[in-house]
Amino acid sequence: MNLQSQWILGFTDGEGCFHIGITKNPEMRCEFQVVPEFTITQHKRDIKVLYALKAYFGCGVVRVNHDDRYCYRVRQFSHLKDIIVPFFEKHKLVTLKRVEFEKFRRVLLLMEQKHHLTVDGFQKIQEIQHTMNRKKHKNSEVSKKFKRESSF
Amino acid sequence: MNLQSQWILGFTDGEGCFHIGITKNPEMRCEFQVVPEFTITQHKRDIKVLYALKAYFGCGVVRVNHDDRYCYRVRQFSHLKDIIVPFFEKHKLVTLKRVEFEKFRRVLLLMEQKHHLTVDGFQKIQEIQHTMNRKKHKNSEVSKKFKRESSF
Repeated sequence: MNLQSQWILGFTDGEGCFHIGITKNPEMRCEFQVVPEFTITQHKRDIKVLYALKAYFGCGVVRVNHDDRYCYRVRQFSHLKDIIVPFFEKHKLVTLKRVEFEKFRRVLLLMEQKHHLTVDGFQKIQEIQHTMNRKKHKNSEVSKKFKRESSF
Repeated sequence: MNLQSQWILGFTDGEGCFHIGITKNPEMRCEFQVVPEFTITQHKRDIKVLYALKAYFGCGVVRVNHDDRYCYRVRQFSHLKDIIVPFFEKHKLVTLKRVEFEKFRRVLLLMEQKHHLTVDGFQKIQEIQHTMNRKKHKNSEVSKKFKRESSF
Protein backbone atom coordinates (compact mmCIF):
# COMPACT_ATOMS: atom_id res chain seq x y z
CA MET A 1 0.00 0.00 0.00
CA ASN A 2 1.88 3.05 -1.26
CA LEU A 3 0.33 6.25 0.03
CA GLN A 4 0.77 9.55 -1.78
CA SER A 5 1.34 12.79 0.10
CA GLN A 6 -1.83 14.40 -1.29
CA TRP A 7 -3.87 11.34 -0.29
CA ILE A 8 -2.48 11.60 3.27
CA LEU A 9 -3.35 15.30 3.25
CA GLY A 10 -6.95 14.64 2.19
CA PHE A 11 -7.29 11.77 4.65
CA THR A 12 -5.95 13.96 7.46
CA ASP A 13 -8.33 16.78 6.46
CA GLY A 14 -11.07 14.21 7.00
CA GLU A 15 -9.87 12.00 9.84
CA GLY A 16 -6.75 13.51 11.40
CA CYS A 17 -6.50 15.14 14.80
CA PHE A 18 -3.88 17.51 16.19
CA HIS A 19 -4.38 17.28 19.90
CA ILE A 20 -2.79 18.95 22.89
CA GLY A 21 -3.37 16.85 25.99
CA ILE A 22 -2.74 18.16 29.49
CA THR A 23 -2.33 15.43 32.10
CA LYS A 24 -1.61 15.53 35.80
CA ASN A 25 2.01 14.87 36.70
CA PRO A 26 3.08 15.76 40.27
CA GLU A 27 6.73 15.72 39.19
CA MET A 28 6.22 18.78 36.98
CA ARG A 29 6.56 22.25 38.46
CA CYS A 30 3.05 23.15 37.21
CA GLU A 31 1.78 19.71 38.30
CA PHE A 32 0.56 19.16 34.78
CA GLN A 33 2.27 17.81 31.70
CA VAL A 34 1.69 18.90 28.11
CA VAL A 35 1.25 15.94 25.73
CA PRO A 36 0.90 16.89 22.07
CA GLU A 37 -0.14 14.12 19.71
CA PHE A 38 -1.11 13.60 16.10
CA THR A 39 -3.66 10.83 15.56
CA ILE A 40 -5.69 9.27 12.78
CA THR A 41 -8.43 6.89 13.91
CA GLN A 42 -10.10 4.14 11.86
CA HIS A 43 -12.27 1.10 12.33
CA LYS A 44 -10.12 -2.03 12.79
CA ARG A 45 -11.17 -3.29 9.36
CA ASP A 46 -8.89 -0.55 7.93
CA ILE A 47 -5.94 -1.14 10.27
CA LYS A 48 -3.71 -1.70 7.20
CA VAL A 49 -4.08 1.97 6.32
CA LEU A 50 -2.82 2.92 9.79
CA TYR A 51 0.25 0.70 9.34
CA ALA A 52 0.78 2.23 5.90
CA LEU A 53 0.79 5.71 7.52
CA LYS A 54 3.30 4.46 10.10
CA ALA A 55 5.51 3.13 7.30
CA TYR A 56 5.18 6.37 5.32
CA PHE A 57 6.21 8.63 8.20
CA GLY A 58 8.66 6.11 9.69
CA CYS A 59 7.50 6.92 13.20
CA GLY A 60 4.55 6.54 15.55
CA VAL A 61 2.56 3.54 16.72
CA VAL A 62 -0.74 1.80 15.90
CA ARG A 63 -2.84 1.25 19.02
CA VAL A 64 -6.39 0.40 20.07
CA ASN A 65 -8.38 3.60 20.43
CA HIS A 66 -11.65 2.31 21.86
CA ASP A 67 -13.84 -0.69 21.12
CA ASP A 68 -13.19 -1.75 17.53
CA ARG A 69 -11.41 1.45 16.58
CA TYR A 70 -7.65 1.77 16.20
CA CYS A 71 -5.45 4.80 15.76
CA TYR A 72 -2.13 5.76 14.27
CA ARG A 73 -0.49 7.98 16.87
CA VAL A 74 2.66 10.08 17.03
CA ARG A 75 3.58 11.41 20.47
CA GLN A 76 7.36 11.54 20.50
CA PHE A 77 8.33 15.19 20.49
CA SER A 78 11.23 14.87 18.04
CA HIS A 79 9.05 12.91 15.58
CA LEU A 80 6.31 15.53 15.76
CA LYS A 81 8.80 18.37 15.34
CA ASP A 82 11.01 16.82 12.66
CA ILE A 83 8.57 14.67 10.65
CA ILE A 84 4.88 15.45 11.18
CA VAL A 85 5.04 19.26 11.37
CA PRO A 86 7.35 19.63 8.33
CA PHE A 87 5.01 17.37 6.31
CA PHE A 88 2.00 19.63 6.97
CA GLU A 89 4.11 22.75 6.44
CA LYS A 90 5.01 21.45 2.99
CA HIS A 91 1.53 20.09 2.19
CA LYS A 92 -1.11 22.60 3.29
CA LEU A 93 -4.34 21.26 4.77
CA VAL A 94 -7.42 22.42 2.88
CA THR A 95 -10.08 22.43 5.62
CA LEU A 96 -10.04 24.56 8.76
CA LYS A 97 -8.09 21.74 10.39
CA ARG A 98 -5.21 23.83 9.09
CA VAL A 99 -5.94 26.30 11.92
CA GLU A 100 -5.74 23.45 14.45
CA PHE A 101 -2.42 22.44 12.95
CA GLU A 102 -1.08 26.02 13.24
CA LYS A 103 -1.98 26.10 16.94
CA PHE A 104 -0.46 22.66 17.42
CA ARG A 105 2.75 23.86 15.77
CA ARG A 106 2.77 26.95 18.01
CA VAL A 107 2.54 24.79 21.14
CA LEU A 108 5.38 22.58 19.89
CA LEU A 109 7.50 25.71 19.34
CA LEU A 110 6.75 26.91 22.88
CA MET A 111 7.71 23.47 24.17
CA GLU A 112 10.91 23.44 22.14
CA GLN A 113 11.82 26.72 23.84
CA LYS A 114 10.99 25.10 27.22
CA HIS A 115 8.16 27.55 27.93
CA HIS A 116 5.92 24.68 29.06
CA LEU A 117 8.13 24.36 32.15
CA THR A 118 7.32 27.89 33.32
CA VAL A 119 4.00 29.00 34.77
CA ASP A 120 3.47 31.75 32.19
CA GLY A 121 4.38 29.43 29.33
CA PHE A 122 2.13 26.66 30.60
CA GLN A 123 -0.80 29.08 30.92
CA LYS A 124 -0.16 30.29 27.37
CA ILE A 125 -0.25 26.67 26.11
CA GLN A 126 -3.40 26.06 28.13
CA GLU A 127 -5.05 29.10 26.49
CA ILE A 128 -4.16 27.81 23.02
CA GLN A 129 -5.40 24.33 23.93
CA HIS A 130 -8.77 25.72 25.03
CA THR A 131 -9.38 27.10 21.54
CA MET A 132 -8.60 23.77 19.88
CA ASN A 133 -10.60 20.71 18.86
CA ARG A 134 -13.86 22.47 19.71
CA LYS A 135 -14.75 19.90 22.33
CA LYS A 136 -15.47 20.44 25.97
CA HIS A 137 -12.16 20.03 27.71
CA LYS A 138 -11.93 17.44 30.40
CA ASN A 139 -9.08 19.32 32.05
CA SER A 140 -11.33 21.55 34.11
CA GLU A 141 -9.13 20.41 36.99
CA VAL A 142 -6.30 22.40 35.43
CA SER A 143 -8.42 25.54 35.04
CA LYS A 144 -9.70 25.25 38.59
CA LYS A 145 -6.19 24.95 39.94
CA PHE A 146 -5.05 28.05 38.11
CA LYS A 147 -8.10 30.02 39.19
CA ARG A 148 -7.79 28.85 42.76
CA GLU A 149 -4.09 29.51 43.10
CA SER A 150 -3.95 33.04 41.84
CA SER A 151 -0.54 33.51 43.41
CA PHE A 152 0.83 30.40 41.62
CA MET B 1 -9.17 26.43 -3.67
CA ASN B 2 -7.68 24.03 -6.20
CA LEU B 3 -8.22 20.44 -5.17
CA GLN B 4 -5.97 17.65 -6.40
CA SER B 5 -7.33 14.25 -7.35
CA GLN B 6 -5.30 12.41 -4.70
CA TRP B 7 -6.51 14.86 -2.03
CA ILE B 8 -10.13 14.17 -3.08
CA LEU B 9 -9.39 10.45 -2.93
CA GLY B 10 -7.98 10.69 0.60
CA PHE B 11 -10.81 12.96 1.72
CA THR B 12 -13.36 10.52 0.29
CA ASP B 13 -11.63 7.58 1.98
CA GLY B 14 -12.21 9.53 5.18
CA GLU B 15 -15.50 11.34 4.70
CA GLY B 16 -17.20 10.11 1.55
CA CYS B 17 -20.28 7.92 1.32
CA PHE B 18 -21.60 5.80 -1.54
CA HIS B 19 -25.19 5.26 -0.63
CA ILE B 20 -28.06 3.32 -2.20
CA GLY B 21 -31.35 4.69 -0.94
CA ILE B 22 -34.65 2.87 -1.46
CA THR B 23 -37.70 5.08 -1.09
CA LYS B 24 -41.40 4.43 -1.46
CA ASN B 25 -42.86 5.48 -4.80
CA PRO B 26 -46.35 4.12 -5.66
CA GLU B 27 -45.76 4.97 -9.32
CA MET B 28 -43.04 2.32 -9.59
CA ARG B 29 -43.96 -1.29 -10.38
CA CYS B 30 -42.10 -2.48 -7.26
CA GLU B 31 -43.60 0.45 -5.28
CA PHE B 32 -40.06 1.44 -4.35
CA GLN B 33 -37.51 3.61 -6.06
CA VAL B 34 -33.74 3.14 -6.05
CA VAL B 35 -31.87 6.38 -5.31
CA PRO B 36 -28.07 6.09 -5.49
CA GLU B 37 -26.08 9.05 -4.21
CA PHE B 38 -22.53 10.06 -3.51
CA THR B 39 -22.12 12.43 -0.56
CA ILE B 40 -19.40 14.12 1.44
CA THR B 41 -20.54 15.77 4.67
CA GLN B 42 -18.78 18.52 6.60
CA HIS B 43 -19.45 21.02 9.33
CA LYS B 44 -20.69 24.32 7.87
CA ARG B 45 -17.40 26.02 8.77
CA ASP B 46 -15.85 24.01 5.90
CA ILE B 47 -18.62 24.63 3.38
CA LYS B 48 -16.02 26.12 0.99
CA VAL B 49 -14.49 22.65 0.58
CA LEU B 50 -17.89 21.29 -0.49
CA TYR B 51 -18.24 24.04 -3.11
CA ALA B 52 -14.68 23.28 -4.27
CA LEU B 53 -15.69 19.62 -4.76
CA LYS B 54 -18.76 20.76 -6.71
CA ALA B 55 -16.52 22.93 -8.91
CA TYR B 56 -14.00 20.11 -9.41
CA PHE B 57 -16.59 17.56 -10.54
CA GLY B 58 -18.78 20.13 -12.33
CA CYS B 59 -21.92 18.49 -10.97
CA GLY B 60 -23.90 17.93 -7.78
CA VAL B 61 -25.27 20.30 -5.17
CA VAL B 62 -24.34 21.61 -1.71
CA ARG B 63 -27.20 21.20 0.77
CA VAL B 64 -27.90 21.24 4.50
CA ASN B 65 -27.48 17.74 5.88
CA HIS B 66 -28.65 18.17 9.45
CA ASP B 67 -28.12 20.86 12.08
CA ASP B 68 -24.88 22.67 11.28
CA ARG B 69 -23.66 20.04 8.86
CA TYR B 70 -23.71 20.43 5.08
CA CYS B 71 -23.08 17.94 2.33
CA TYR B 72 -21.89 17.83 -1.24
CA ARG B 73 -24.30 15.48 -3.00
CA VAL B 74 -24.52 13.92 -6.47
CA ARG B 75 -27.77 12.14 -7.27
CA GLN B 76 -28.28 12.64 -10.98
CA PHE B 77 -27.79 9.26 -12.60
CA SER B 78 -25.83 10.50 -15.61
CA HIS B 79 -23.47 12.50 -13.37
CA LEU B 80 -22.85 9.49 -11.16
CA LYS B 81 -22.29 7.24 -14.17
CA ASP B 82 -20.21 9.59 -16.31
CA ILE B 83 -18.29 11.65 -13.73
CA ILE B 84 -18.20 10.18 -10.21
CA VAL B 85 -17.77 6.48 -11.07
CA PRO B 86 -15.03 7.07 -13.69
CA PHE B 87 -13.13 9.27 -11.19
CA PHE B 88 -13.01 6.45 -8.60
CA GLU B 89 -12.24 3.88 -11.29
CA LYS B 90 -9.21 5.93 -12.28
CA HIS B 91 -8.20 6.80 -8.70
CA LYS B 92 -8.50 3.73 -6.47
CA LEU B 93 -9.76 4.22 -2.92
CA VAL B 94 -7.30 2.95 -0.33
CA THR B 95 -9.63 1.98 2.54
CA LEU B 96 -12.35 -0.67 2.42
CA LYS B 97 -14.65 2.10 1.23
CA ARG B 98 -13.43 0.81 -2.14
CA VAL B 99 -15.68 -2.24 -1.59
CA GLU B 100 -18.67 0.06 -1.00
CA PHE B 101 -17.80 1.87 -4.21
CA GLU B 102 -17.65 -1.42 -6.15
CA LYS B 103 -21.14 -2.35 -4.91
CA PHE B 104 -22.39 1.14 -5.71
CA ARG B 105 -21.00 0.83 -9.24
CA ARG B 106 -22.67 -2.58 -9.62
CA VAL B 107 -26.05 -1.10 -8.67
CA LEU B 108 -25.57 1.74 -11.16
CA LEU B 109 -24.78 -0.83 -13.87
CA LEU B 110 -27.95 -2.79 -13.03
CA MET B 111 -29.93 0.45 -13.18
CA GLU B 112 -28.38 1.40 -16.51
CA GLN B 113 -29.59 -1.95 -17.83
CA LYS B 114 -33.05 -1.16 -16.38
CA HIS B 115 -32.96 -4.13 -14.02
CA HIS B 116 -34.27 -1.95 -11.16
CA LEU B 117 -37.62 -1.85 -12.97
CA THR B 118 -38.06 -5.61 -12.73
CA VAL B 119 -38.86 -7.53 -9.54
CA ASP B 120 -35.80 -9.78 -9.79
CA GLY B 121 -33.52 -6.86 -10.55
CA PHE B 122 -34.94 -4.80 -7.71
CA GLN B 123 -34.45 -7.67 -5.25
CA LYS B 124 -30.85 -8.06 -6.44
CA ILE B 125 -30.24 -4.35 -5.80
CA GLN B 126 -31.89 -4.66 -2.42
CA GLU B 127 -29.57 -7.56 -1.53
CA ILE B 128 -26.52 -5.51 -2.50
CA GLN B 129 -27.82 -2.51 -0.55
CA HIS B 130 -28.22 -4.62 2.59
CA THR B 131 -24.51 -5.41 2.60
CA MET B 132 -23.56 -1.73 2.28
CA ASN B 133 -22.80 1.10 4.70
CA ARG B 134 -22.91 -1.30 7.66
CA LYS B 135 -25.77 0.59 9.27
CA LYS B 136 -29.15 -0.71 10.23
CA HIS B 137 -31.34 -0.11 7.24
CA LYS B 138 -34.45 1.92 7.72
CA ASN B 139 -36.11 0.24 4.76
CA SER B 140 -37.46 -2.67 6.77
CA GLU B 141 -40.76 -1.74 5.13
CA VAL B 142 -39.28 -2.95 1.84
CA SER B 143 -38.10 -6.26 3.30
CA LYS B 144 -41.46 -6.81 4.97
CA LYS B 145 -43.28 -6.23 1.72
CA PHE B 146 -41.13 -8.73 -0.14
CA LYS B 147 -41.48 -11.34 2.60
CA ARG B 148 -45.24 -10.80 2.85
CA GLU B 149 -45.92 -10.93 -0.86
CA SER B 150 -44.11 -14.14 -1.75
CA SER B 151 -46.02 -14.26 -5.01
CA PHE B 152 -44.87 -10.74 -5.95
